[in-house]
Amino acid sequence: MLRDEQDAYGHLLWAHHQGEKVQEIVERDDGFIDVTGGPDAYFAAFEDWPRHQQEAMQYVRGRVVDVGCGAGRVALHLQERGHEALGIDNSPLALRVCRERGLRRVRGMPATRLSRRLGVFDTIVMMGNNFGLVGNPRRARWMLRRFRNMTSPEGRIVAETRDVYQTDNPDHLAYHERNRRRGRTPGEVRIRVRFRTYATPYFDYLMVSKEELEEILEGTGWRAGTYLDSEEWPGVYVAVLEKG
Amino acid sequence: MLRDEQDAYGHLLWAHHQGEKVQEIVERDDGFIDVTGGPDAYFAAFEDWPRHQQEAMQYVRGRVVDVGCGAGRVALHLQERGHEALGIDNSPLALRVCRERGLRRVRGMPATRLSRRLGVFDTIVMMGNNFGLVGNPRRARWMLRRFRNMTSPEGRIVAETRDVYQTDNPDHLAYHERNRRRGRTPGEVRIRVRFRTYATPYFDYLMVSKEELEEILEGTGWRAGTYLDSEEWPGVYVAVLEKG
Repeated sequence: MLRDEQDAYGHLLWAHHQGEKVQEIVERDDGFIDVTGGPDAYFAAFEDWPRHQQEAMQYVRGRVVDVGCGAGRVALHLQERGHEALGIDNSPLALRVCRERGLRRVRGMPATRLSRRLGVFDTIVMMGNNFGLVGNPRRARWMLRRFRNMTSPEGRIVAETRDVYQTDNPDHLAYHERNRRRGRTPGEVRIRVRFRTYATPYFDYLMVSKEELEEILEGTGWRAGTYLDSEEWPGVYVAVLEKG
Repeated sequence: MLRDEQDAYGHLLWAHHQGEKVQEIVERDDGFIDVTGGPDAYFAAFEDWPRHQQEAMQYVRGRVVDVGCGAGRVALHLQERGHEALGIDNSPLALRVCRERGLRRVRGMPATRLSRRLGVFDTIVMMGNNFGLVGNPRRARWMLRRFRNMTSPEGRIVAETRDVYQTDNPDHLAYHERNRRRGRTPGEVRIRVRFRTYATPYFDYLMVSKEELEEILEGTGWRAGTYLDSEEWPGVYVAVLEKG
């Protein structure tokens, strides 16, 4: 779990939840820094989600875990729809926001600690690019195999990511090249969130093309069923992963 | 002058000038990071300035130098009003933006290099908190004496700054305390501007209360004439400094 001074993301969500006008800053390990669309997007109601995310919810069934639930928009929506929805996050303050917003089931833990001890799930959701929490291709395979063992026979993963090759931003293209030189996947971004004096540790966040995803899936017991492409954001898509 | 990779401020202004939607990030040396109101404010037309800044322009006369002219809003306004207005800045790209926007006289240099070699000025303007470019109280006195020798007998300085004590922000209050412990003035902020992968070097930017300003002025040949307080921003004010 993040210590309080590391919980930049949670403090950001908390401030927004208190009605403060705040913006999220993300810093990459090459020095690139940017202001994201958050936190508004992290609190958005279902009606305001991009269409491909709304459509993705049709693939959710049964008992659900929302990995990196943030302010809880996805878990809250699923709970309203009648699912037993558990939100997990490594940010204590994010979970506090979720509870205040009415999410009944939350657990503080990083995605890598998710295990069968929490029971069997029918759907694992990783929306808002949260497939990235697998970190890198090697850890992705390890986590996907774990996910296989903690899901029901008809279990699914509904995961959002981004094909990073669909860009002409010179900073991003240079970063892909930097990653290749270091033997990393181009879309393996090492980032941290900053807010006021709070800064998360740097963490790896993996973004993959459909081809890269399918290569990762090999031998994990998962296959890509449906793809839902974003109409708004180039390269962003949801993959619905099925067993077998 | 800033090297290109240091010219975060200039690249920000340049991107905005090209029509890109960009935001300025400022990082303080205690790790505090924030998104500022720029660059919109740096391009604002006179009609859209806060009232105290508009009023400050009534005190400008004759030949003017705009210290840290940025995107040139002040120098351009004064040029339009018929003044001979020179803009100086240490950002090459900021000056390029100024020229493209029609500012006829620009010189690339930091505020500390401003000297009599550029001729005699009737007014030195340091708007948008740019009194801060004096850095610290000691350097402020050295620069103010220099400014005395490069201005006409009726010369003026029209300078904007901020009384930092008018805050209840715990991060800022902790920073004041940190400065005191280090023998610095509470409002002596060490900051850098970041944009994409560009980062300026850290620089000292001094913000002073009226009492602190008057203490600094002692023995420099300048006295505070008029104060114009901001109605929008707590503690922000323009000081019109007169000789004698």
